[in-house]
Amino acid sequence: MTFHRPEPIPTPYLLFLGDVASKADTKTAAGLLEWRAAWCSAQCRLPGCVVDLGLPDMTPAQAARAGLRTLVIGVAPDGGRIPEHWLPSLHEALRAGLNVAAGLHDRLHHVPTLVEAARGHGARLFDVRGVPDGLKLPVGRGVPRSGRRLLTVGTDCAIGKKFTALHLERAMRARGMATDFRATGQTGILISGAGIAIDAVPADFVAGAVEWMSPAAAPEHWDVIEGQGSLFHPAYAGVSLGLLHGAQPDAIVVCTDTRRSRIDGFESFRAPTIEDCIALNLQLGAMTNAAIRCVGISVNTAGMSADERRAALQGVRERFDVPVFDPAVEGCDAVVDLLR
Amino acid sequence: MTFHRPEPIPTPYLLFLGDVASKADTKTAAGLLEWRAAWCSAQCRLPGCVVDLGLPDMTPAQAARAGLRTLVIGVAPDGGRIPEHWLPSLHEALRAGLNVAAGLHDRLHHVPTLVEAARGHGARLFDVRGVPDGLKLPVGRGVPRSGRRLLTVGTDCAIGKKFTALHLERAMRARGMATDFRATGQTGILISGAGIAIDAVPADFVAGAVEWMSPAAAPEHWDVIEGQGSLFHPAYAGVSLGLLHGAQPDAIVVCTDTRRSRIDGFESFRAPTIEDCIALNLQLGAMTNAAIRCVGISVNTAGMSADERRAALQGVRERFDVPVFDPAVEGCDAVVDLLR
Repeated sequence: MTFHRPEPIPTPYLLFLGDVASKADTKTAAGLLEWRAAWCSAQCRLPGCVVDLGLPDMTPAQAARAGLRTLVIGVAPDGGRIPEHWLPSLHEALRAGLNVAAGLHDRLHHVPTLVEAARGHGARLFDVRGVPDGLKLPVGRGVPRSGRRLLTVGTDCAIGKKFTALHLERAMRARGMATDFRATGQTGILISGAGIAIDAVPADFVAGAVEWMSPAAAPEHWDVIEGQGSLFHPAYAGVSLGLLHGAQPDAIVVCTDTRRSRIDGFESFRAPTIEDCIALNLQLGAMTNAAIRCVGISVNTAGMSADERRAALQGVRERFDVPVFDPAVEGCDAVVDLLR
Repeated sequence: MTFHRPEPIPTPYLLFLGDVASKADTKTAAGLLEWRAAWCSAQCRLPGCVVDLGLPDMTPAQAARAGLRTLVIGVAPDGGRIPEHWLPSLHEALRAGLNVAAGLHDRLHHVPTLVEAARGHGARLFDVRGVPDGLKLPVGRGVPRSGRRLLTVGTDCAIGKKFTALHLERAMRARGMATDFRATGQTGILISGAGIAIDAVPADFVAGAVEWMSPAAAPEHWDVIEGQGSLFHPAYAGVSLGLLHGAQPDAIVVCTDTRRSRIDGFESFRAPTIEDCIALNLQLGAMTNAAIRCVGISVNTAGMSADERRAALQGVRERFDVPVFDPAVEGCDAVVDLLR
């Protein structure tokens, strides 16, 4: 069983934010900056962009002159399309000799003018989403496999599932546990250098793709699998369910943000309670692993004052008898203790 | 809003069954034969094939001499791959001037030797699965839209969801109701000449694809949407959930076969009870349509004796107060009465 490991993308990066209107849509850039800060040298923003990562602002041409190597599209708008009005910036980058990398549903390689410009200027295009050429994914089997698995699940998208999984991997390794982070989205793939963006896999193969990327392992080995979407999301619940069934997790950690009462960008949909989120994941996950249990609740408290943070965590702790933590603040030791 | 209507495929057809080992895998051929019998002139079987559709057996060369126009791959093995050992038959067809049509995940157009052979012999390849070139699917929105929708759901795959939906469309039209069958799988597309095989859509777009193929309509108009998979299927539950959320059905009809105690081909998984199947579809479907209700149970009694049939239907009728019927025998009038 070989694992997909894409070609390394030349660093340092210019993080392209476009004219993004919501911080939740910049999770690729934010994730790279947090976990691979050394690779991220500047940001490129268009008029109307509401997000500032605190990096120097550069145009693609300036970035090329400063020695940066690749413009990485750090934004994931709904549906993963490349807006037409971003194309001039991407062309400017290619003309200046920067490579362009993206993890959108729309492939850079499917935009003929970009392919031509890259060829003309000796630059390269990297698409990290989608099934790698030539890989024949299996369909799911649902058969138990050795090794242990933890899946991060969420009350919504863009709420901390990847972030929590990366922290868990780090904490588990620090405690000497054999652990692998399994990326299921473009940012996780950019950070870890491996994985499959399962939301771009043909729907029939989602569970199979997860089985494939988290193969049988030593009995004590843990895969920490990055969750996607939410079972309560009107657009993406099917992705989350295929992932849950393919992951066959022994353990889930629920990721939430107590400030978010509505599904982000789908305001007519109420965000589920943590109780409902745990219950539905256990109910549906039991189909492929009857031993599934919830081992923690990861609360995203970014931007809260100390008082708000304390109140948010306390409010959740009173309702549950599993560890309640913000991995960025408390770390993940309480969960790791439970897993050992 | 335009609807995808593929190019017509020249008839009559030679139905290719390969060396299929299970009748459940021949649903494409069986569906075409039942709903478009006039197009189906012969079958082509390889050694080991256990299914006989009752059509004359012909080799591709014989079929071409008899005036047939297209070899249709009538088999849908798990995962929709084209087995290597089928290729000689497909090449024989192309050499003889037959077109070749398929609705598998593996595209005919992705097999270079087939593309070359088709070009060399003036024949054509038709791939009916997959997102049509150039179509940009939206992601789901979950927002209510006008018109009414019925979705057939199942306790398993290949159990009668398409068959029931086609019968319902026919019965509703016969009663003067404005009704459209919405195909979501390759066989339904081959029969109806339109639709999208949603199991081949990138996972993020499943709900959106269903919203797109079943757009807002007149308030009294019914879309009868073909279900896929089962929420209880270890490989495909995610597809079924995305379809359920995108369809936003007002009504579901549960399709089952009382003889099937295990998920077909996944014998370690028990088939759900009809009660559990209804309950889970209503529970999860309520997220995008709180008014969802079950309006009937379609029992596949094909191959049963009259006594067995009576017992099977009676056993189910005792447990539910909605119409229980085999559309091939009773027709769908009881459900249509309920919908009017």
